[in-house]
Amino acid sequence: MRFVKGHGTENDFVLLPDPDGILDLTPVLIRALCDRRAGLGADGILRVVRSEHAPAGAPERARAPWFMDYYNADGTTAEMCGNGIRLYARYLVEAGLAAPGSLRLGTRSGVREVRLAATGDVTVEMGAARITGPASAAIDGESYDGVRVDMGNPHLVCLVDRPLADYDLTSSPAVSGAAFPDGVNVELVSVVSERHLAMRVHERGVGETPSCGTGACAVAVAMAARSGADRGEWTVDVPGGRLGVVVGPDAVWLRGPAVIVAAGAIDAAWLAAASGSRPVELRS
Amino acid sequence: MRFVKGHGTENDFVLLPDPDGILDLTPVLIRALCDRRAGLGADGILRVVRSEHAPAGAPERARAPWFMDYYNADGTTAEMCGNGIRLYARYLVEAGLAAPGSLRLGTRSGVREVRLAATGDVTVEMGAARITGPASAAIDGESYDGVRVDMGNPHLVCLVDRPLADYDLTSSPAVSGAAFPDGVNVELVSVVSERHLAMRVHERGVGETPSCGTGACAVAVAMAARSGADRGEWTVDVPGGRLGVVVGPDAVWLRGPAVIVAAGAIDAAWLAAASGSRPVELRS
Repeated sequence: MRFVKGHGTENDFVLLPDPDGILDLTPVLIRALCDRRAGLGADGILRVVRSEHAPAGAPERARAPWFMDYYNADGTTAEMCGNGIRLYARYLVEAGLAAPGSLRLGTRSGVREVRLAATGDVTVEMGAARITGPASAAIDGESYDGVRVDMGNPHLVCLVDRPLADYDLTSSPAVSGAAFPDGVNVELVSVVSERHLAMRVHERGVGETPSCGTGACAVAVAMAARSGADRGEWTVDVPGGRLGVVVGPDAVWLRGPAVIVAAGAIDAAWLAAASGSRPVELRS
Repeated sequence: MRFVKGHGTENDFVLLPDPDGILDLTPVLIRALCDRRAGLGADGILRVVRSEHAPAGAPERARAPWFMDYYNADGTTAEMCGNGIRLYARYLVEAGLAAPGSLRLGTRSGVREVRLAATGDVTVEMGAARITGPASAAIDGESYDGVRVDMGNPHLVCLVDRPLADYDLTSSPAVSGAAFPDGVNVELVSVVSERHLAMRVHERGVGETPSCGTGACAVAVAMAARSGADRGEWTVDVPGGRLGVVVGPDAVWLRGPAVIVAAGAIDAAWLAAASGSRPVELRS
């Protein structure tokens, strides 16, 4: 089993080239691969599969030659990943499987357009953003008014008044003023300069992370609305690097780096053990 | 640059085959390789180099054909690593560079004998242990009497009375009753059954870790002395797996798994960036 390890603003992935869809990717194997000490370590798995061999139910096979079969580190599927799809596109081009420039990739949330710049940055269409109203978050004992943004997943964007590094995000901020039946990602934002923001994010079910692609988009959309702008480009610094967000009338675009770290092959004995056919090692 | 990723009881390493000693391993590059999101991720680096090409000052070149050039994740060197040397030996045999059975490896603390069993376990000679006296550690507000053990590095072994999982090791236990000018690794031990122990460890300067080879040896030596035995074999469960410790009159031996996860090549562009010749990505 071949692999590529890489990241986008330190949101990191193990990419598995599987053009003909022959890999047997079980949740057990995904968790083993993503284990940061006993496996390769990653936030998620990107299986690179031709659309005609994609899982049943994958949309739009005819309109995009490749499908991003994305899994979280816990083995569950996810619809889209703004940092992951950039690495996926970078891999396709570096492997000679797609031409640089603009390409269309299938995801569980439909076909997304991706553009590779000569600088190395990759830009991806993230779909429409929808501001759904106010809410507030309690952080370090203070309550901050925020804006709810739906990017396909729920966000609560709060402009804060102290330096971002001062806040403790080790636990999930308490939210109020709106119902979040599926939880919510909470972003803390500060303004660096005109159209330049910095953020930290607490992802639902995960904790603080170095980057969140939909979170950066939600932050730009919320701050655009606050300033009365309905379009334009914002720079958004996340702990893991720098992203650009282009807010348009119909869609939001996310721009950022996609870094390939290494490539190789999973050890056959490890794979057999991780797939459950024999124990990895002695354990009590 | 080729690499192998693997672990021993979840103490994980990036191994760099460099028989002719041509790699330019700077602290900056070591930190980049060990970064768990922007690099490959590891607790340390094992450079595999023939003894005649080992760094100046490496002992005993004539007596061991290979030298374990070990670095911590922060770029500093370390003398020995009981979990790392098992992976090093496993790699040499799997790569056809050494015969299975018994081999001698050079380290910064001298030549160590290593034995590879048909079961996959690897046993390594860890040198002599020395019990140096009593001391105590405060954990969760309670004081526990302990035994100081010198394994080349300092340990304080404390037998505790509650289940190991109940203790909070997020911060360094306060120690008293002896001076530890270079800090100390603190082990909490409970007895599973006759000659079967379980431990957790707080490593100086690191925090709680899933495994510590010298710590497992210190625990077995302390509990052997407590039971009046001067030799024998103890099973020691660590959070990352199971180790065996053979206590002898002159030396202690550590036995445990060595797991190769994957092998491949570092991306050339990433390597150039990580080595400092151009920025990895945009940052503020």
